[in-house]
Amino acid sequence: MNVQTTIEQSVPQRLARVREVMAREGVDALLVPSADPHLSEYLPGYWQGRRWLSGFDGSVGTLVVTADFAGLWADSRYWEQADKELAGSGIELMKLLPGKPGALEWLGDNIRAAGAVAVDGAVMALASARQLEERLKARDIRLVTDRDLLAQVWEGRPALPSNPVYQHLPPHATVSRAEKLAQLRSTLVEKGADWHFIATLDDIAWLFNLRGSDVSYNPVFVSFALIGQKQATLFVGAGKLDEHLRHVLQVDGIELRDYSDVGTVLSEVAPGSRLLVDPSRVTCGLLKHLNAQVQLVEGLNPTTLSKSRKGEDELVHVRRVMEQDGAALCEFFAWLEAHQGTEVITELTIDEQLSAARARRDGFVSLSFSTIAAFNGNGAMPHYRATEQSHAVIEGDGLLLIDSGGQYLGGTTDITRMVPVGTPSLEQKQDCTRVLKGMIALSRATFPRGILSPLLDAIARAPIWADQVDYGHGTGHGVGYFMNVHEGPQVIAYQAATAPQTAMQAGMISSIEPGTYRPGAWGVRIENLVVNREAGKSAFGDFLTFETLTLCPIDTRCLLADLLTKEELDWLNRYHRVVRERLAPLLAGDALAWLEERTAPL
Amino acid sequence: MNVQTTIEQSVPQRLARVREVMAREGVDALLVPSADPHLSEYLPGYWQGRRWLSGFDGSVGTLVVTADFAGLWADSRYWEQADKELAGSGIELMKLLPGKPGALEWLGDNIRAAGAVAVDGAVMALASARQLEERLKARDIRLVTDRDLLAQVWEGRPALPSNPVYQHLPPHATVSRAEKLAQLRSTLVEKGADWHFIATLDDIAWLFNLRGSDVSYNPVFVSFALIGQKQATLFVGAGKLDEHLRHVLQVDGIELRDYSDVGTVLSEVAPGSRLLVDPSRVTCGLLKHLNAQVQLVEGLNPTTLSKSRKGEDELVHVRRVMEQDGAALCEFFAWLEAHQGTEVITELTIDEQLSAARARRDGFVSLSFSTIAAFNGNGAMPHYRATEQSHAVIEGDGLLLIDSGGQYLGGTTDITRMVPVGTPSLEQKQDCTRVLKGMIALSRATFPRGILSPLLDAIARAPIWADQVDYGHGTGHGVGYFMNVHEGPQVIAYQAATAPQTAMQAGMISSIEPGTYRPGAWGVRIENLVVNREAGKSAFGDFLTFETLTLCPIDTRCLLADLLTKEELDWLNRYHRVVRERLAPLLAGDALAWLEERTAPL
Repeated sequence: MNVQTTIEQSVPQRLARVREVMAREGVDALLVPSADPHLSEYLPGYWQGRRWLSGFDGSVGTLVVTADFAGLWADSRYWEQADKELAGSGIELMKLLPGKPGALEWLGDNIRAAGAVAVDGAVMALASARQLEERLKARDIRLVTDRDLLAQVWEGRPALPSNPVYQHLPPHATVSRAEKLAQLRSTLVEKGADWHFIATLDDIAWLFNLRGSDVSYNPVFVSFALIGQKQATLFVGAGKLDEHLRHVLQVDGIELRDYSDVGTVLSEVAPGSRLLVDPSRVTCGLLKHLNAQVQLVEGLNPTTLSKSRKGEDELVHVRRVMEQDGAALCEFFAWLEAHQGTEVITELTIDEQLSAARARRDGFVSLSFSTIAAFNGNGAMPHYRATEQSHAVIEGDGLLLIDSGGQYLGGTTDITRMVPVGTPSLEQKQDCTRVLKGMIALSRATFPRGILSPLLDAIARAPIWADQVDYGHGTGHGVGYFMNVHEGPQVIAYQAATAPQTAMQAGMISSIEPGTYRPGAWGVRIENLVVNREAGKSAFGDFLTFETLTLCPIDTRCLLADLLTKEELDWLNRYHRVVRERLAPLLAGDALAWLEERTAPL
Repeated sequence: MNVQTTIEQSVPQRLARVREVMAREGVDALLVPSADPHLSEYLPGYWQGRRWLSGFDGSVGTLVVTADFAGLWADSRYWEQADKELAGSGIELMKLLPGKPGALEWLGDNIRAAGAVAVDGAVMALASARQLEERLKARDIRLVTDRDLLAQVWEGRPALPSNPVYQHLPPHATVSRAEKLAQLRSTLVEKGADWHFIATLDDIAWLFNLRGSDVSYNPVFVSFALIGQKQATLFVGAGKLDEHLRHVLQVDGIELRDYSDVGTVLSEVAPGSRLLVDPSRVTCGLLKHLNAQVQLVEGLNPTTLSKSRKGEDELVHVRRVMEQDGAALCEFFAWLEAHQGTEVITELTIDEQLSAARARRDGFVSLSFSTIAAFNGNGAMPHYRATEQSHAVIEGDGLLLIDSGGQYLGGTTDITRMVPVGTPSLEQKQDCTRVLKGMIALSRATFPRGILSPLLDAIARAPIWADQVDYGHGTGHGVGYFMNVHEGPQVIAYQAATAPQTAMQAGMISSIEPGTYRPGAWGVRIENLVVNREAGKSAFGDFLTFETLTLCPIDTRCLLADLLTKEELDWLNRYHRVVRERLAPLLAGDALAWLEERTAPL
């Protein structure tokens, strides 16, 4: 039996082998989440065990296997895909609904009393493990987290990524790693912690001014970090840093250890010392290495708040990046308008042309996520992705939704625009106009510094709710600085918990992206990035306001101007004037003409 | 020494006697909260021990006494008053600030390790007692809740109130107590509870369709209730119910026991049975009577949700009450306008005249809270109350804020209006206009059924925040039906926790009352009551919208029409048209003329 054959064994064969291991180990159920030791959004192949074992290719889903049952919990975005991909696998699709019991509840209710549930502790957040343990305790079920059962059966498992790590350098890196470390250390003193352990890749990349390409779209590298008052240890795979970089880091007092040494080093943290960790951003498996006398101080990783607050120097670069990104979009839109009707354009063509336009721009590194080009019915799926096998041709009448973004050395972009195809219907224009009203309402908002960001969501939704329309996703997420396009701690979503760390602070960049989705028919989303700016100090406290960063026309052919209030029209015309003024110098020919036409005042 | 003398002993004398008792009982600290066994907003004199012992007359404050310290924790509304009233008492004013440590934290930090803190468990919520116990545990401090130390020294303590209890009858009572009990019992079955114990007076009055007058403004009576599938026991002072009412209740299967029997009856709840209680609405002292084998099921009192959702028949009465209340206000305002400048009018006169106008109205029972008539600088104190000793004359230029309400057999009102005096300044008009914009924004809102009410607050505040203005109180509270003017579970306040029970449901009545307070200068608040109405079911779910219930002109002489958008002007003119149409038939002469002038379109 050669390797190729074992890789291609069927899902039922894989399940059968896993069940043999489970029986041998005395385990009643195996839980396989979509997670890695860094609790990342995008997983290297090495940790895509849920995908390997279930055959389900969606990015989020939780698999549970028992001797006589296998189920995959997935939310509504994935039901159609999971239905297809699980067919014949013997795995049941368990439809996950907000407020309804999920995989953890199922385990608590269905595993025999005094049984055992296994999950690889190396990929389960401490907070989740605690929840599950709490759940299982009631029926005296044991949670086994000290072994990776898949390792015993997963032949042909991908290797850990070995892509090179590189520096994020001035002028784009505006604060030195020495300053960042000093700031972190003073926060540790405030929190009474001797040590801080970081498992999240964007926190580590930000802290050390390093970048990588170990996962798609996020410029990060697989690593851990342990920081003390005098020590800073970076755990990263041998061979990922060249000699020069190793030297630079050594000069900055950073010790390099192999990625696989993390357990050993954690086990050497002195008993009695206090270690700061974020229980939802570090796995229980890693913390098991600690001496029992190490005391945990639990809280948000301080770097998560620090990196969310972009400095003035960073914002100078971000504004330039927005000009480059906006110019790329104008060139693409001009091309699209010129070629529509003269050649076959599909959702895939859109991705190719737009990516190419961005790639021509100064400082471009990669896309910041997989482009969503979704025509009519496809637009109704907020996470749609066109594939070679399944994609639409852009023809006839309707709406094309394009959600895309780029990673640049001086910032990260994320923008959604609606494109009219042929003649959009009245209803489509109503939806676009209403969504724009929501985006404008929040974009114009002033609010107290420190307000919990979920509380602002209603400002965007009020004009949309007015017509009894709503959307299931959040209105806004944080965005990194040449970093992950999704970052915390703020989240403008009424569905999110109003946790203290979601407080709005100056310098945070967020998206504002309300939408409307008509299943099978069309979807609308309009998205700009904004940054929290100090609005001033009044007798009533400090206030923040949004500066809109994204620069790209909002196609008025999709709008019904009569539905906009005077204030909304003023906002739109002002926005288009700024877009024109800032992008025109970067454009020529058709793209410039397109910009001028599309930014004409209403 | 006669009784009169002992009543008038000084605060230092009282403290000295309490300290003797504390020493005898081996207690290091005595905690005296502002609370009674029903955790009510208004306390009968019998439970005003904090007031008696400290001399501080404010309605909210927490006293701590140790051998060598006495401190009263009060929030900023009471600092000025407490400063005066505590002078010479030896009690220190401890300024309570949001997010800063309070009395419980102080006890945890300052009482000697392994010491003892006493609080009368009969007036401390189970949830608060748990918090305090948790706090004290760290230093092994004991919490003593089984005795009322004040009882031993409080001579001349007021008796329990003995006011009569009466029925809330049809047509105003639209659901019989039998139906309400049946509904509650089916909820108990759902929750797996055998029994439900209620200590909150509005829940009890609502459930049994009974009313009383044991405290100011809230039409309730001192009582407890214990409900099972077959039993319903009402604990109420002997002599408060006449023979007819006792008979009526007996016929409805309700057992009457004396108020003082509650401990005994609780101690008889069968071991092994499950008792539903709301840990923040029942005291730890009462629950101490339970057999240790009784299992607590914790959750909101089901009646709290039920009574918050007014039925269609109740709303018919509420609308009539709003007409009566609005007519009373018009008569008062017409009087005020006619007499201003011709005689001395003070804040106290306002209260007298307005109360008299309400009292002339059909179905009026009492005020629903103490009238706030606050001229200029006094208006900057949201909880201001004019007294014989200290009140302003209404003269010169400025703004008069009047916040008032009534209890009627068919509903409860609460309204705030601004009255121009002489010529209000431009800044005063700007404040009034901005506050009105906030009130209109929320009044016009549509929102998903079930949204957590704190999440809606930003809709009211957005137009106010726009000018970097904010206010420290919530935007809206629930309002009862001939019941407490403050009730839950909803609360439109971004400062409030987004607990699941705050979800908006059809039929809930809330206030919308944004404000602006300029210390020492003036205050603005405009308040209407609204009810959640079903807006319809769309593809995106069920939506609710507000119907404005309050009917009274909003004085346009306090406004700058130029600052209102077209949509806001439309709302105001439409509102005034409705007010005119519905109040005109109830008015004549000066009041009618005033109504017509004040509702003229802008």
